[in-house]
Amino acid sequence: MTEGTSTTVAAHTAIAPVEPPERLLMGPGPSNPHPSVQRAASAPVLGHLDPAYLAILAETAKMLRQVFGTRNALTLAVPGTGFSGMEASLCNLLEPGDALLVGAAGFFGAKMAEIGARCGAHVTTVTGEWGTPIHVNALRAAARDLGRVKVIAVVLAETSTGVRQPPEDIAALARDLSALLVVDAVTALGGMPIPVDELELDAVYSCTQKCLGALPGLSPITLSERAVRAIEQRKQPVQSWYLDLLALQRYWNPPHAYHHTSNVSLVYALHTALRLMLDEGLDARYARHALHGEALRAGAAALGMTPLAAPEHQLPMLAALQFPAGVTDGTGLRRALLDEDGIEIGGGLGDYAARVWRVGVMGYNAERRNILHLLGAFERLLPRFGHTFTPGAGLSAAEAVYAAQDSQV
Amino acid sequence: MTEGTSTTVAAHTAIAPVEPPERLLMGPGPSNPHPSVQRAASAPVLGHLDPAYLAILAETAKMLRQVFGTRNALTLAVPGTGFSGMEASLCNLLEPGDALLVGAAGFFGAKMAEIGARCGAHVTTVTGEWGTPIHVNALRAAARDLGRVKVIAVVLAETSTGVRQPPEDIAALARDLSALLVVDAVTALGGMPIPVDELELDAVYSCTQKCLGALPGLSPITLSERAVRAIEQRKQPVQSWYLDLLALQRYWNPPHAYHHTSNVSLVYALHTALRLMLDEGLDARYARHALHGEALRAGAAALGMTPLAAPEHQLPMLAALQFPAGVTDGTGLRRALLDEDGIEIGGGLGDYAARVWRVGVMGYNAERRNILHLLGAFERLLPRFGHTFTPGAGLSAAEAVYAAQDSQV
Repeated sequence: MTEGTSTTVAAHTAIAPVEPPERLLMGPGPSNPHPSVQRAASAPVLGHLDPAYLAILAETAKMLRQVFGTRNALTLAVPGTGFSGMEASLCNLLEPGDALLVGAAGFFGAKMAEIGARCGAHVTTVTGEWGTPIHVNALRAAARDLGRVKVIAVVLAETSTGVRQPPEDIAALARDLSALLVVDAVTALGGMPIPVDELELDAVYSCTQKCLGALPGLSPITLSERAVRAIEQRKQPVQSWYLDLLALQRYWNPPHAYHHTSNVSLVYALHTALRLMLDEGLDARYARHALHGEALRAGAAALGMTPLAAPEHQLPMLAALQFPAGVTDGTGLRRALLDEDGIEIGGGLGDYAARVWRVGVMGYNAERRNILHLLGAFERLLPRFGHTFTPGAGLSAAEAVYAAQDSQV
Repeated sequence: MTEGTSTTVAAHTAIAPVEPPERLLMGPGPSNPHPSVQRAASAPVLGHLDPAYLAILAETAKMLRQVFGTRNALTLAVPGTGFSGMEASLCNLLEPGDALLVGAAGFFGAKMAEIGARCGAHVTTVTGEWGTPIHVNALRAAARDLGRVKVIAVVLAETSTGVRQPPEDIAALARDLSALLVVDAVTALGGMPIPVDELELDAVYSCTQKCLGALPGLSPITLSERAVRAIEQRKQPVQSWYLDLLALQRYWNPPHAYHHTSNVSLVYALHTALRLMLDEGLDARYARHALHGEALRAGAAALGMTPLAAPEHQLPMLAALQFPAGVTDGTGLRRALLDEDGIEIGGGLGDYAARVWRVGVMGYNAERRNILHLLGAFERLLPRFGHTFTPGAGLSAAEAVYAAQDSQV
């Protein structure tokens, strides 16, 4: 290998500069970040051990604690996307042979079971129907047949179904069993309360690109003292060096021991998004997600699109909307929305690919103008794809929600 | 958990917007990206399945192949920092009980051994002296005592010592043994040729924030067909779901199966950095790193700072400079450089923390003005930290390198 010798396999084909089109991202994430969040990603790069950067990390962790409702010392952002937080939670808490009990009524619950198995755990999955939450009694019954359950894992906001999993009873069950409770808050964080300390949740992880309204690529995570002790008492090292949470903790906090080169630009964006969130106020932010989610669902229902989740289980920030009567080409409609209106919504996962669209009302995007823009586009496109309705029905139903809200103020 | 109930643990303390200071990043990485690379990170966010985004991924993979000197189909960027590429390489190729032979003459070689052990491999480490490369005969001798060696792993550019590891003989040994060869190119890629196909390297990974000059947070990787077959023939799943390379491959290429939410902003930055690199020309880029690295080392030597690596083993883009006579407070000098001059250089790792500084000449930063800025700052600070020399010696020595170069042109 001589320096200066060309190793180019093919002649360079001119490639144009990246010029991504503007989209309105109303799928299950990413959502559009606030302009100042996007600008923050272009701020000057700092080294991962620069004192100025360590101060930014400390502020970021402090704000994450507020959003998570916790005083947990181990609160940081794993340097990967939401799935890296899922894997970090499971592979740090589980050792080969440990019993993991998963409640899965959707794609992401099933993924927790798969990742747990890859950690060498004995996995028992309580499978619920897509569109419903897991009942605590089903988990309790499954636990009876097991020896010691080391970890219980559930999804707080199932991104494949739009279902809200009530965590209170499951948290109580985990305490009864002296099990650690891992909670997936990927879609929940920033859009609904997650009282980590109040419910004594042991490991809660999320992503940055949904209701937090930052850029994709980080996974905020928080661990209880009990969970940290469990990691400290492991018999063998965590199978992943990259996702070793105690090593990440020693980097985020003194002694700031080198572990990896922090993705600084994404941390700038996360810091900015968290600051905007706290300036807005958490209650106001959750109310905003609830209001615009309700308007979206009211408008969708008026157009024949019923959420998969029953109203009492429906998430504020994400709805899996069933295709209305007459529509079969769900992919075609999504593509038309994207090409003609610049709006992205999501398709269904697994068996629901040909039955639902997934619509998100997340972060900066949870605003009246976006809901009406999307409903208007649905009104224009649905007849072309086989569904007819009273013109204006969707927009009127959403407006009625807003009018009711205004009359309360 | 009632929506609308505050979960704020503490009252929000006002936190100011992120305003990172401008630094000249002359350590072992990150380096300063070109302004257009930084701007690219603020381009509009696209969904990870948007056809416009999939086109950007395809172009990025195509450019990565050119820089890696390969036609490998499995060429992509792992969604994590350089260590995620190291872990992905090892945990995809190794199954529990497999024999891994590591050549380690520095911090990062040792980390390969540690990660291999966490994958359940039987790890044999051939330890070399820091400051020298590993000799192929030492690896050959160690292999004789082993049964079948599944994987050999070496570091092409050891970031802890500034040593260049010649890969040719080791590649030949790997073929002799029918072993797969994993090569760490974290510091090398973009600053020196890495002829992946020519040498039949099986798994080569890097990072984005050093000689590629992009933002930290991605790990470019390429795998030979032989390596892909080895993964396909595994008896058990890869222990990491997040770093499962075949799953990542199915996302980057058709059928574009959902695996994770791509960190789009970092991919925009990488795409931009790769385009700038190919526009510059690979040979010109390698020559630029060689020239400015030589000027830096000439200037440093004239100031009493000898590289740890002998000249014939010295990397172009990174030097571990030994403290000159009289200097003991290496940390103090680094801090003064940062605070007074806005220049970051790196400290030594392990036992070398109190013996060397690590200076990088990487990517966009490999320019005359930066070399002279750094040498000028050294000239000003070294006397304060205990080393005296003929004033101007460092700058003159660097200028002599540039003058010799100019006279060749």
